[in-house]
Formats: sequence, C-alpha cells, structure tokens
Amino acid sequence: MRGGDDGRAERQPEPGLSAVRTFVVELDMSRTAIADITDEAARFVRGAGDGLLSVFAPHATAGLALIETGAGSEADLLEALGRLLPRDARYRHQHGSPGHGVDHLLPALLPPSLTVPVAGGRMLLGTWQRLVLVSLNRDNPGRQVRLSFLAG
Amino acid sequence: MRGGDDGRAERQPEPGLSAVRTFVVELDMSRTAIADITDEAARFVRGAGDGLLSVFAPHATAGLALIETGAGSEADLLEALGRLLPRDARYRHQHGSPGHGVDHLLPALLPPSLTVPVAGGRMLLGTWQRLVLVSLNRDNPGRQVRLSFLAG
Amino acid sequence: MRGGDDGRAERQPEPGLSAVRTFVVELDMSRTAIADITDEAARFVRGAGDGLLSVFAPHATAGLALIETGAGSEADLLEALGRLLPRDARYRHQHGSPGHGVDHLLPALLPPSLTVPVAGGRMLLGTWQRLVLVSLNRDNPGRQVRLSFLAG
Repeated sequence: MRGGDDGRAERQPEPGLSAVRTFVVELDMSRTAIADITDEAARFVRGAGDGLLSVFAPHATAGLALIETGAGSEADLLEALGRLLPRDARYRHQHGSPGHGVDHLLPALLPPSLTVPVAGGRMLLGTWQRLVLVSLNRDNPGRQVRLSFLAG
Repeated sequence: MRGGDDGRAERQPEPGLSAVRTFVVELDMSRTAIADITDEAARFVRGAGDGLLSVFAPHATAGLALIETGAGSEADLLEALGRLLPRDARYRHQHGSPGHGVDHLLPALLPPSLTVPVAGGRMLLGTWQRLVLVSLNRDNPGRQVRLSFLAG
Repeated sequence: MRGGDDGRAERQPEPGLSAVRTFVVELDMSRTAIADITDEAARFVRGAGDGLLSVFAPHATAGLALIETGAGSEADLLEALGRLLPRDARYRHQHGSPGHGVDHLLPALLPPSLTVPVAGGRMLLGTWQRLVLVSLNRDNPGRQVRLSFLAG
C-alpha cells in the first residue's frame, strides 16, 4: 500500500502495538484545504470483510466530512466556513498567523471522527460520497488520518 | 419488521453478504425534510444484546441528527439551516433546482454518520433524543439509512 | 475510579446489564458550559487493550466536541455558537428560560456521539485534542456522558 500521486505518504503503525487493524494516512496540505482520502480508505478495508471503519483525525485544527468532490462543493464549503467562522482578530485563542484562533473552532463544526459501515471489504458509501479531511490551518500542513477497522 | 405508516418501506440487504447485522430503512421524503427513524432503529436492535449501533446515510445531500421532535425543533432547525446555509445562487456546485448546491453542504454540518450505544437490545438514548434524517433535497426524495449492529 | 475535583461524580451502570464495558460520567454544569472529560475517558480505557471508544451524551440539549482547551477556544466556541444559534425569541420550541429553544439545536451542530480509536489502553488523540461536553442549557445542569468500549 503506497501513497497517492500528490505527495502524500502512508505508513503503518509500529508492528505489534495493535490487534485492531489500523493505518495512518499522511497528508501534505500545504497546497489544499480539503484532501480526498476515499481511495486510501477503500484500499485499507479491501478484503477486510464486514465491520465498521473508524476514521479519526488526531488534530485540534482539522475536521472530517463526507461530501461530493469534483463538482464545486469544495469551494462552496470553504466559502461557507469562512462566513460561519470568520478568520479575523476576534478570537481569544491567539498564536501563529493572524486569525488562526478560528482554526481551533473547525473541529467543533466538522468533527474529526466518522464511522463508516463496511461489508465484504467495501465501504458502504453512497454514489457521490467522498471522505475528506478539511484543514484551514496553513501553519501546520502535515496532517494525519487514522483508519481503524473493527470486524463484526 | 415492516415499514412505518407514512409510506416508507424497509428491506433487508442481500442475504449472505454481511456477517454484521445490518438493515436499510427506506424513506420517502417528498413531503418532509426531517424523518424520525427512532422507532425503526429501536426495532432493529431489539434482542440484539450489547454493542454499538452505527447509523449511516449513504447520501451526499443528507445528514443525521439526534434531537427532540414533536415540540417545534424541526421547524427551528430548518430555520437555522436556511440562515446558516442560504439556498441561493452563490454556489459553484450547480445542477438541478435553483440553489441545490447548498444541499451538498448539509452533510458537512450534519454528518451522515452517528454511533449509538446499545445495552440489552435497547438504544441508550436520553429521554427526549430522537434519531432523524435531515434532507432538504427535494430533487431526490428517496432516501436510505443503513443500520449496522456491532456486538460487544 | 472517583470523580474529579469540580463536583462531578462518576458511577458504574447496574452490574450484569452490559457485556460491553461501559461507564457514565456525571457532570454538574451549573457553573460551566464546557466540561473537559478527557481525564475520565483516559482512566476508563486504561488497560482496555485495543478497540473503539464510543462517547455518547444522552441529552437533547448537549453536544460533544474534540477541541483544545485552556488556551481560549472555549470562549471562542461560545461566542461562535451565540452568533450561529442566537438565544432569542424566534424559536417554535418554547419552554423554560427565554431563548431555551436554541439549546435544542445545539446537538444538530455538535453531535452528541463521537468515536475515538484506542490502542494499548490509550486513546489515540492528537497532542492538543481534549474531549468536551458542551451544554448551554442552564435549566438542567446535571449532565451525563456514557463511555463504552468495544474491543477489537
């Protein structure tokens, strides 16, 4: 299992640590605020049988979403987030780039935890559902998403 | 197990596909934007023992929520969503009815994935919690919710 | 296992009811709208091996979030929620304190259900992620969060 074509790499956790099958997708988000990790998740569950896929982003400034990609909704989501959570000087949480405090509110609106049912080694997603990580935090472009499979 | 009295039907997935107990609730949402599926979920886990119920909507324009119903919050939620996600011409994602692009943002704010603990065949919901599917997408009234039970 | 230093108590569910390990954190939120329960969750999974932690708030007026605490984001989140969900007289759902209807929308934006991966008895949280319950409902300060562990 290898990374995608956009500079991202994947690595396995330390062997022997976990009885639950798990995998960490490593992302470089310096050039994007929305990273589609559907293909990585599909590869992870391939052959895994039936169960639940836990998708978890171990970050305080990123969130997960299941949306359609490739038809404009990425830009629409960024416009909506900029309107609902303005990047300005109002925030108590201040460090890093101006307005960075807002990045810390993103995971409240877009939780970093999602669970997807799996059957026969396939995620039971809808036709247009894609699994994405959203991170507006340009101060920290290196992001991870942990995939864990719990068999039924 | 049969459908409710409002035109909805339920069906079992193809036999033999899944070792995880799973069930798809089929909904006709042509006359409502919020469908209460608590009773269907309660029937699904009845007798199932202890574990986790995964609730998943395989749609790019629908989301799930746990709210009180029957006391006005459905209308309040629709007002709030209309304010936070206006149905107008601003969206890049354009097809179908005017403003349909906004429907594609709903699952970012209301994720289509929820997990409910189950003990002794009962969901451990709070007194007023009801499980609902929210879909403002009138272009596609046929909706599904997949219930999956993972035993402890 | 005992409660924290802020008046909260914890109790075990009735013995014999559940084969899934489960625990209810009891909170007194009369003096706070955001309660950090990360330490209680860490104690709960200690020694539990690998699996998934289900975190569930059985309330119609509370939600969960994974955010950084102690650096200002609690105040920022309350400001954002007050702006996105104004506490005024607009709501159909009316009872209790003025504007209480808005409390019933909180769990739509901040779902009361989260799932956290666990390995070797430790939650696989990011460095700054803390698990919090958010409740703006001062009419009902007694709150609970149910922790359930599903082994892998």
